[in-house]
Amino acid sequence: MTYTLILLRHGESEWNAKNLFTGWVDVPLNDKGWGEAKRGGELLKAEGVLPDVVHTSLLRRAIMTANLALDAADRHWIPVKRDWRLNERHYGDLQGKNKAETLEQFGEEKFMIWRRSYDVPPPAISDDNPYTQVGDVRYDGEPIPKTECLKDVLERALPYWESAIVPDLKAGKTVMVAAHGNSLRAIIKYLDGIADDAIVGVNVPTGIPLVYHLDENLKPTNPGGTYLDPEAAAAAIQAVANQGKK
Amino acid sequence: MTYTLILLRHGESEWNAKNLFTGWVDVPLNDKGWGEAKRGGELLKAEGVLPDVVHTSLLRRAIMTANLALDAADRHWIPVKRDWRLNERHYGDLQGKNKAETLEQFGEEKFMIWRRSYDVPPPAISDDNPYTQVGDVRYDGEPIPKTECLKDVLERALPYWESAIVPDLKAGKTVMVAAHGNSLRAIIKYLDGIADDAIVGVNVPTGIPLVYHLDENLKPTNPGGTYLDPEAAAAAIQAVANQGKK
Repeated sequence: MTYTLILLRHGESEWNAKNLFTGWVDVPLNDKGWGEAKRGGELLKAEGVLPDVVHTSLLRRAIMTANLALDAADRHWIPVKRDWRLNERHYGDLQGKNKAETLEQFGEEKFMIWRRSYDVPPPAISDDNPYTQVGDVRYDGEPIPKTECLKDVLERALPYWESAIVPDLKAGKTVMVAAHGNSLRAIIKYLDGIADDAIVGVNVPTGIPLVYHLDENLKPTNPGGTYLDPEAAAAAIQAVANQGKK
Repeated sequence: MTYTLILLRHGESEWNAKNLFTGWVDVPLNDKGWGEAKRGGELLKAEGVLPDVVHTSLLRRAIMTANLALDAADRHWIPVKRDWRLNERHYGDLQGKNKAETLEQFGEEKFMIWRRSYDVPPPAISDDNPYTQVGDVRYDGEPIPKTECLKDVLERALPYWESAIVPDLKAGKTVMVAAHGNSLRAIIKYLDGIADDAIVGVNVPTGIPLVYHLDENLKPTNPGGTYLDPEAAAAAIQAVANQGKK
């Protein structure tokens, strides 16, 4: 018995194009992102990797990516589960700020620590910041963060993995998780046993389904997973790597 | 304590424009239908009638209508439940056939009985008809019909109302049901106590949320419900009435 898990990172959002820190700010996909989501669903259909249930974050860029991909895969009718524990990393006080301006203001060392360290979060967001989630009814009664490092994301995402996703896998369902760069990193770190200082170097391309086959102990039989469009995935990962070389 | 129920009929589909009997054939919304769905969500937001949970059929025209409306209302993140018991009436052997040609082939009397009687279904669809749902995995293990009259729709929709929708209402949630002309008629007939021979005259306009306020016994305090855009709803209902006068 093996289990099948599909990880799908949302397509490009309006703030990606504007180079703003997004985090929990609920920005929509842009036109490119819509296209990426549909293409992801077409890949699922073409490869016959068909989800039986989908888990999403509470953010519209992941939700709409799932909606569009599932429609393109003719799986729009499957059960849906949503939870804030699959949300993107909370970017704290950086949410809504321009990345280039933040780099200039705080310098490269701090900037890179906030973006790429495992366990140092950015400064917390204040309750009167227009990009806070305090007062957002979708999080009523939940212990939501005011900033997060990647370690924090793992600590809230993995309990959801255990309590909600694993039971679906063990019931024999092909599970799709439609989420974000960092909540997917949390799952990948756990599945592939990646070290704290290596996980930030793992980049998941947007809109290309990443399929894991898991053994009875939920260990990957294909470590690192398999992208449904490996060439496009490799090109996207290389592009991110090249961004770092400036 | 009163309860709030929102009924939303899907927007125009590609087969509405082509004048084909649709039933359980899973055709997509057309561009007009996308616009209707978004407008429905904008009405919800403008009027502050915000669903806490959504129930849909298993057909993409209702599912996408819900997705687009909820996104426009900033309620994309609410829990979702889906069930075939909210599907459109199964149109039997008429599915996929042109309405004008069917009228010509069978004559007006039979045609009107199939379309507008309460308890006479069209001929059953055969298993080798390209528009059958036999073999469609989404209905695996379910006692799905091969044709239905409106009475049949009530008999499968009302158990879902009782077992799935009523508990959400009684938990104090504002419930949205995104579905079809005839599955919504079933709910309306039950809520408003409409007679068998009168319910086929009730037409629900597409894309305009119909809001019911229900007392503790789930009886409407606003019989017939309240459309969020009453003028547009009245115009759409009048247009359907005029179609009959030829």
